[in-house]
Amino acid sequence: MSQPTIDLNSDLGESYGRWRLGDDAALLSVVTSANIACGFHAGDPTTIRSACREAVRNGVAIGAQVGYPDLLGFGRRFIDMEPGELTDAVLYQIAALDGLARVAGSRVTYVKPHGALYNTVVHHEEQAAAVVQAVREYDASLPLLGLPGSVLLKSATEAGLPTVGEAFADRAYTREGTLVSRREAGAVLHDPDEVARRVVRMVTDGEVLAIDGTPVRLAAESVCLHGDSEGAVAMARAVRDALTAAGVRLRAFAPGADH
Amino acid sequence: MSQPTIDLNSDLGESYGRWRLGDDAALLSVVTSANIACGFHAGDPTTIRSACREAVRNGVAIGAQVGYPDLLGFGRRFIDMEPGELTDAVLYQIAALDGLARVAGSRVTYVKPHGALYNTVVHHEEQAAAVVQAVREYDASLPLLGLPGSVLLKSATEAGLPTVGEAFADRAYTREGTLVSRREAGAVLHDPDEVARRVVRMVTDGEVLAIDGTPVRLAAESVCLHGDSEGAVAMARAVRDALTAAGVRLRAFAPGADH
Amino acid sequence: MSQPTIDLNSDLGESYGRWRLGDDAALLSVVTSANIACGFHAGDPTTIRSACREAVRNGVAIGAQVGYPDLLGFGRRFIDMEPGELTDAVLYQIAALDGLARVAGSRVTYVKPHGALYNTVVHHEEQAAAVVQAVREYDASLPLLGLPGSVLLKSATEAGLPTVGEAFADRAYTREGTLVSRREAGAVLHDPDEVARRVVRMVTDGEVLAIDGTPVRLAAESVCLHGDSEGAVAMARAVRDALTAAGVRLRAFAPGADH
Amino acid sequence: MSQPTIDLNSDLGESYGRWRLGDDAALLSVVTSANIACGFHAGDPTTIRSACREAVRNGVAIGAQVGYPDLLGFGRRFIDMEPGELTDAVLYQIAALDGLARVAGSRVTYVKPHGALYNTVVHHEEQAAAVVQAVREYDASLPLLGLPGSVLLKSATEAGLPTVGEAFADRAYTREGTLVSRREAGAVLHDPDEVARRVVRMVTDGEVLAIDGTPVRLAAESVCLHGDSEGAVAMARAVRDALTAAGVRLRAFAPGADH
Repeated sequence: MSQPTIDLNSDLGESYGRWRLGDDAALLSVVTSANIACGFHAGDPTTIRSACREAVRNGVAIGAQVGYPDLLGFGRRFIDMEPGELTDAVLYQIAALDGLARVAGSRVTYVKPHGALYNTVVHHEEQAAAVVQAVREYDASLPLLGLPGSVLLKSATEAGLPTVGEAFADRAYTREGTLVSRREAGAVLHDPDEVARRVVRMVTDGEVLAIDGTPVRLAAESVCLHGDSEGAVAMARAVRDALTAAGVRLRAFAPGADH
Repeated sequence: MSQPTIDLNSDLGESYGRWRLGDDAALLSVVTSANIACGFHAGDPTTIRSACREAVRNGVAIGAQVGYPDLLGFGRRFIDMEPGELTDAVLYQIAALDGLARVAGSRVTYVKPHGALYNTVVHHEEQAAAVVQAVREYDASLPLLGLPGSVLLKSATEAGLPTVGEAFADRAYTREGTLVSRREAGAVLHDPDEVARRVVRMVTDGEVLAIDGTPVRLAAESVCLHGDSEGAVAMARAVRDALTAAGVRLRAFAPGADH
Repeated sequence: MSQPTIDLNSDLGESYGRWRLGDDAALLSVVTSANIACGFHAGDPTTIRSACREAVRNGVAIGAQVGYPDLLGFGRRFIDMEPGELTDAVLYQIAALDGLARVAGSRVTYVKPHGALYNTVVHHEEQAAAVVQAVREYDASLPLLGLPGSVLLKSATEAGLPTVGEAFADRAYTREGTLVSRREAGAVLHDPDEVARRVVRMVTDGEVLAIDGTPVRLAAESVCLHGDSEGAVAMARAVRDALTAAGVRLRAFAPGADH
Repeated sequence: MSQPTIDLNSDLGESYGRWRLGDDAALLSVVTSANIACGFHAGDPTTIRSACREAVRNGVAIGAQVGYPDLLGFGRRFIDMEPGELTDAVLYQIAALDGLARVAGSRVTYVKPHGALYNTVVHHEEQAAAVVQAVREYDASLPLLGLPGSVLLKSATEAGLPTVGEAFADRAYTREGTLVSRREAGAVLHDPDEVARRVVRMVTDGEVLAIDGTPVRLAAESVCLHGDSEGAVAMARAVRDALTAAGVRLRAFAPGADH
């Protein structure tokens, strides 16, 4: 019987100049994949480079956390970009990060949209296609990390790109297997032990208890953890510890990330 | 007897969003090397990508026109950046352009600082070393294009990087072979025919008449042309035509630019 | 019988640093109201100040051309800003321009949303209310200039703000009196003489021929002219000349603009 | 015998979008004057507006913390701006903040340069004159807050502007009464009690012990406190408490700040 394996991903490199955000050092001891901001919604060259260096030192895979060009909004506001412009903006971001990752001894091994772009490409055909187009043009072997069932992952598959679906450690699910909207009560879980137990069940049994108590199937190859608060880092550690204790192997999904 | 050869370089890809600057199409029919802006002082992803595509279509070599992060100042204002920050900023810019150049079927084949950074690294040891460091870390086979005798080119040579010295088609020289300051009368030449004759003499005889009439030696491997006005494009064309008529071969200096 | 009167407005101050846009000097000899960009989608402090100075010198009223914070997109891309953020962003823009206008001897006398914000507040209740809120907080005597029938003007009226509806000189209208979509053939008129005749009829008779030939009522207090191309400036001049020849008085709608 | 009086100033409103910096709420219970960032090196419209609102609620005077246009560098890098550009940039910042302050029920009551601009105008004649020019044009009754003996304050005085010299609570002084360079050991003091005692002596006796133990005269009308770390806020509180205990009246220097 094969050992269950999972990837843990988190956002890193999101500081900007004097403004610090998140505890990159702590997260790099927890995750196996680092979604590093590329400078458009967060991340300046020095922050990015440092995040790449530390990711390499910790054996963590580097992914491009691409977003809208919107520092003020931290990429959390939908921008109605033309698909061609979006493709070019995503290409530019992947390329910049890839160069800094190479200098650090690694490379970009996957792409994950950030914030409003992440939410938009769940359903927006043109913008999803624009992101897929950028990855395909840059390197068609790079997987796209996103929401299972999203338009993004469907478009990527149709374009021949590898895809990786992720689950959210601290989010409640509906019985249909979709995320409970943040506007509803109980959408976000706060107890580290409960969250850790849920993630172990997701990984070992492939299911999660929906908000109404029904067990639902959930096939995720990566679990997204947050790290932008002290509590978030503690929760991330609890998840990692519980998975390890349950005999789960933690491993980046991205090919070539181990080199 | 071997045919004299020279490279002609010019700044391209300097538009930004709605704001258009320069006549890239016209210049690409004149030059052999395109210094393409990388997004920090000019150039947005779509502009850059389009410039790369057109450079490839015209068989023109692509160089990274790296600058200070200062859109408002168009990179023309000295910024007292820490060397480490400058290295990272230059690395980011080279990487971003290189990615877009690769997608267009080429790659970055050299690096040329822009505006205030160009002027600063003529004499500023730390910033010159910071630029050299970035190029060395990214790809130590990339030549630096700059002012002959500058601290930049000296540092690059010491670091084992190839260097290329350039002459300015429309600038007056002192009898010591340095540029006449723009603050002095006669510093900039405006007559296309005179400029064309001077460039032919630079290339075929390796000398130029100084502002006081003395012939001075000038060993340039590339000649910088401007293209940000109608007159500039006409002058660039006059230079190219005169060189061709004089039997000079126009060719990018950068290895691999012809692939 | 009273002399017919109209205001002519146009966008000015839309350059940014090295990048020049539009012919402000030419337009200031044509229009009576200048919509000056405030620095978020176009306009840097020096450009804005210069536009204010020239507006004052030409006796032209200054209005705040407020937009989304998006230099790269020139304010032409919808951004899904929170209403509170949008209110603050609009307030900041009005305040900055008002300060520069005061130093130039005038002040902001009206507010007109730009680009995607203009189009959005035609129908978007929250963003329209956010813009109205900003103007009301800054100075409830400032009129909002916009599309007749838009949610923006309705919200402004409900909030007790003065409003001014504008017509477009070079746009075709439907028989319902709305603009023909730019996606349809014939939406934009290009013949300066025809445009000038139409504007005279709008002003003197309060009607315009719809795209299907039906005369429709159109009660505009201002006519919007473009100035971002050579042809646009010529058209703007043709409109002004035709209005003057027809005995129409050209006058800013904004109270206090004549001081 | 009159009660000794002093102003305490600190930087506020330095967050930017998602990135939080400093503890504005804590500082507003300590200081009498708030140097609020204006959006060029820190501070977005919503952050600024909130800082204005809280300053008003706490009866704290609002000053314009003007800086270089450099978010990435947090205004801490010298930028070689043309004086005219700098004047316009400072004017724009004062105007924007003044508008938001007015909406909050107050107004800008003084101007203090930030970071590299603060250090530059200690000695740089042209940039100092440019800042003075901006304040003079905006409102010649606004005091400039800066380093005693600086070119900025001298230029301001010559131009007829009020000036206010400040001392630094946590910095060592030379026997000549200038600041010990941060590069030297002992330049920055870390013990809250010692710092509080020094400030009381500055205010009540007009002198401070220099780094070599010599008492030196120091005539400051305001004392600058930092607030960007937990320790900094504790030190600020210790200074305020010690001053109050010593019978010193804390009061904004700016006329009209109490309205």
